[in-house]
Parts: sequence; C-alpha cells; structure tokens
Amino acid sequence: MGSTTGDTGTRTAVTVIGLGEMGTALAGAFVEAGHPTTVWNRSREKAAPLVEKGARPAADVREAVAAGPLVVVSVKGNHTAREVLGAAGDALAGRSVVNLTDGTSAEARETAAWVRERGAGYLHGQIMTIAPAVGSPDAVVFYGGDEAVYDRHREELRLVGGRGSRIADDAGLPTLYGMAVHGTMWGVLNGFLHAAALLTDAGVDVTRFLEQAGPSVSAVTSILPSIADEVDRGAYALEFGALQHHLPSVEDLVRESRDRGIDASFPGYTLDLVARAVADGHADDSYSRLVEHFRGR
Amino acid sequence: MGSTTGDTGTRTAVTVIGLGEMGTALAGAFVEAGHPTTVWNRSREKAAPLVEKGARPAADVREAVAAGPLVVVSVKGNHTAREVLGAAGDALAGRSVVNLTDGTSAEARETAAWVRERGAGYLHGQIMTIAPAVGSPDAVVFYGGDEAVYDRHREELRLVGGRGSRIADDAGLPTLYGMAVHGTMWGVLNGFLHAAALLTDAGVDVTRFLEQAGPSVSAVTSILPSIADEVDRGAYALEFGALQHHLPSVEDLVRESRDRGIDASFPGYTLDLVARAVADGHADDSYSRLVEHFRGR
Repeated sequence: MGSTTGDTGTRTAVTVIGLGEMGTALAGAFVEAGHPTTVWNRSREKAAPLVEKGARPAADVREAVAAGPLVVVSVKGNHTAREVLGAAGDALAGRSVVNLTDGTSAEARETAAWVRERGAGYLHGQIMTIAPAVGSPDAVVFYGGDEAVYDRHREELRLVGGRGSRIADDAGLPTLYGMAVHGTMWGVLNGFLHAAALLTDAGVDVTRFLEQAGPSVSAVTSILPSIADEVDRGAYALEFGALQHHLPSVEDLVRESRDRGIDASFPGYTLDLVARAVADGHADDSYSRLVEHFRGR
Repeated sequence: MGSTTGDTGTRTAVTVIGLGEMGTALAGAFVEAGHPTTVWNRSREKAAPLVEKGARPAADVREAVAAGPLVVVSVKGNHTAREVLGAAGDALAGRSVVNLTDGTSAEARETAAWVRERGAGYLHGQIMTIAPAVGSPDAVVFYGGDEAVYDRHREELRLVGGRGSRIADDAGLPTLYGMAVHGTMWGVLNGFLHAAALLTDAGVDVTRFLEQAGPSVSAVTSILPSIADEVDRGAYALEFGALQHHLPSVEDLVRESRDRGIDASFPGYTLDLVARAVADGHADDSYSRLVEHFRGR
C-alpha cells in the first residue's frame, strides 16, 4: 500500500523547505490531506499561517529534514537549495528530496549530484501551474530523477499536481520541458499581443476576434507534431507552406504594422529569419528549417 | 434556390483571374463542382491544365469578366488586382468581385472602393489554408465586404472553403484577421523551434517531448480569451502569474540558452519586454499589459 495505510492509518510525514507562494501552497496541500507536515523558511513569520492550520515549525533545517522521509524544497535558485540543505548535515542521508526550485537544467543536475553524494534520493520537479492551482487534478508536473523516489511517494506527489509524470532519469529534463512549454507560450503571447495591438487599432475587440477566429488561433499548435517530426528527421523539404510562402505574408504584416504606427520589431524578427533562410537557399523548406538558426549554426 | 437550380439545373458561371497555386486550386474546385469556369492568367500557359479539365480560357480580361456574374481574383498584390481588373473596362459593372489577393488592410479597402466605383459588388477574402486544402470542408475563409455578394454566392464560396464566414462589412478586416492568426502562429513556431534547439541539444527527440508534454503545449492558447478580455478592458492587474512571476523564468531560459550555445535572441526579446515593463512599475500586471508596448506607446 506504499506510504500510507489507508484513511484510518498514518500518513507519511512531509517536510517543506521554503515558504514562498509555491512552498506555502504545497505545505497547505499536505496539511489539508492529513500529512504530518513540518515547515521551515529563512524568515520564520512565513510559517505562521501554516502553523495555524496544523503544520509544525522546525527550529532549524536539520530538525526539518530529520522530521520525515520526504523533503520538498521550493526556494529561490538551486544555489540556495544546496546552501539550505547543507545545514542539515548528515540528517540528509536516507531522505528523499523532491526539489521544485527553478533554474537551468545544469543547476538541477548539479543539485541532484550534490544531494546523492550525501546519501539521499533525488527527484527534480517542474510545476506547470501558478500557486493557487497546486494540487489540483489538472495541474501538470514534470519529474526527472530517481524512479524509487517517484514510486515511493506517488501519493504525496499527487498533492503537488494531479497530472504528474516522471519523464526521465535525468534531473535536468523537467526544467528543459518547462522552458520548452513556457518558451512556446511567450511566443504565442507576443504574437497574439502584437496582433491585439493591430486589431484594437482598427476598432476590433480582441474578444470578438477570438469569437470569430478562435478555432484558427487554437489550431496554430496543431502543426507542431509535424514540425517536431521534421526537426527530428532533419528533413525540411516541403511542397506547400514552405518558407517562400511565408515570406510575402510576413512582409505584409511588417508593412501593416509600420503603416499604422504599431511596433514592428516582433514580426520584423520573424521576417529577418525567414528572409535570411530564403536567401540562403532554403525557399522550398518548411519553417522547421529555422531550428538550425536557433541552434546558432 | 439562389444561384443554382439544383443538380439538374445550370450552375453559376464563375471567372477566376490569376492562376498561381491558389487560383489554380480554386478554378479546379469550380470546374469539379460543375460550374462553367472561365480562367485568365497573364502568362497563358498556366491555364492549359485547367482547360484540359473543362475550364474555358478567356482571350483577355474583358472577356473573362464578361463571362459570368462572379469574378474571383487571386493575384500577387492589390495593385496588380486593380491593374488587371482595369482592363475589363465597363464590363465590371454589375459583377460581384471576390478578391482573395494578399496585402495590407488599407490595400484591401482601396481595392474595395475602386471596384465599387466601377459599379461592382465587392467581397475580400482571406483563405486560411494552403492550396491543396482549398475547398475542403475544414478550410477557413474570412470575408469582409458586401453582404449581398456573400449571400448571392454562398454556394460558390463554399467551394473556396467549407468554413467561410463574413466577419464584417469592412473589406480590410479579413486581412487583419489573417495576420492576427499568422502572427500568433509565427510566435508559436519561433518559441517552439527555439525550444526544439534546446531539447535536441540535450538529446531529447522533439516528438518524444510532444508525446509527454503535448497537452501543456496545446494549452498555451487556452490563456488567450482571458488575455483578450484584459486587453479589451485595459485592466491588467493580476494576483498570480503577473510579469514579476514571468521575469525569473525568462531569465532562466536566456541563461540556459547562453550556457549551451543556443541562440538567445528570441527569449532575449521577451526578457527585454518583461524586464522593461517590470522596471516601469508593472510588476503586478498580467502579461497582457505588453499590448501597450506593441502599440508603440
């Protein structure tokens, strides 16, 4: 039955280190589900609302880490994560660390190695939602690291987000997955907000535009599996919808923006990429060819 | 029964001017559906494959325009559209012109005014698909212009795309709608291909990433209705997911890219926007606040 013996049994003790928005939401979810929850934060007043709900405040990190088998970390940066956990000394050995701290993939891997050197299991997690949605059935979390930690603490991890999955042994991959999703999202947002500037300048409500053109906008992600396949195969040739077909449309968008005093730097960036690729002989290639540009080659 | 008298009757005669990829596909769809179809193209050899299928080649533009009530135009640029139609002289009066030519919204409106001055009805259309999908039930087409033209030729317009809709009287709007969808699409593609460069550099197949993270990627467009609402209301304040929450994540993405020799200009563009907005006092505002940047204010 894993780490719980059922509704009438005792639940696994959980420690939460770092009580920012995310850590506070996580600790709240564990307390609410009936887990004995120990909390620690550098500035201690952050713990007060959780203690009122039933969490136990630890006097120091060593005491926090010693309180149970599962240590969930959510602090600002992996350097801080290692510094804080370092204060636990040999209490770390034998624990399972689930680190939800943001950073780069290399920093996540460094932290994984550092934790394992101290005899603890390690799982890095990337939460794909904002704090109020932590623990909801729809909340997606990507995990990378020790399968044993993931299997042993499935029940507790479900309280981080209902749609958690371990995507790899590599502790750096959740970070990369998060960046890939967010990077795509920022692309969408920039493109859409530039369009919103054009639409509202022409007197069109953006909501009305979405009512009329919403399916076309949502469909922009439906092309991604074929783009992914082209990138993976390195095969970019295409009969229709090639870069030469994109070029005049991007030119029109830049022209429209300039005509109307709307900032043209975002479509201008795209125009530069497409025009250079066409000039370099890739007119008949798919847009996916531009991955080579992003590779910096 | 509108422009047709049923399967046994005669179908409306259609003229297609301009036989590029799109015009050729359109003329083919009309011929296939049994419409008497007259075609004209500046270089006449383009008409040959269509004539073989049953289309009638016109000797000149005047003859083409005089051949029937509906004139579909698909040429390179609205300046060319007016120049070509000008050769029809007074044969244009009384016709319905459906112009599917790309350009800016101002150019579409100019062409609308020019056509109407010559006594013809006008509808501008923006086809949202590539040539091989013309006429398919799923093909989206945005129309702007005369309601009478749209109503009279619904049957023929269905052969341009099964999901056509007249979004406005304004002949400039279809172009803007197309740009808004494509602009969002280029944002998605740039963000995704930058991510693909990071993923493949880490040894991850992009297809595998999509298998594992696809729902999160598709969900990036689900935020757009709330973004649209914020833009329309000019109300950007937000408790969670504000610009201050985006900032460290964009910084991580730029750092990750630089660490690994991946071109950082695309996330760097986003970082610049977000950092400036935060510095300008908008830390607690939604990402939608950046529409003000794109407005060039």
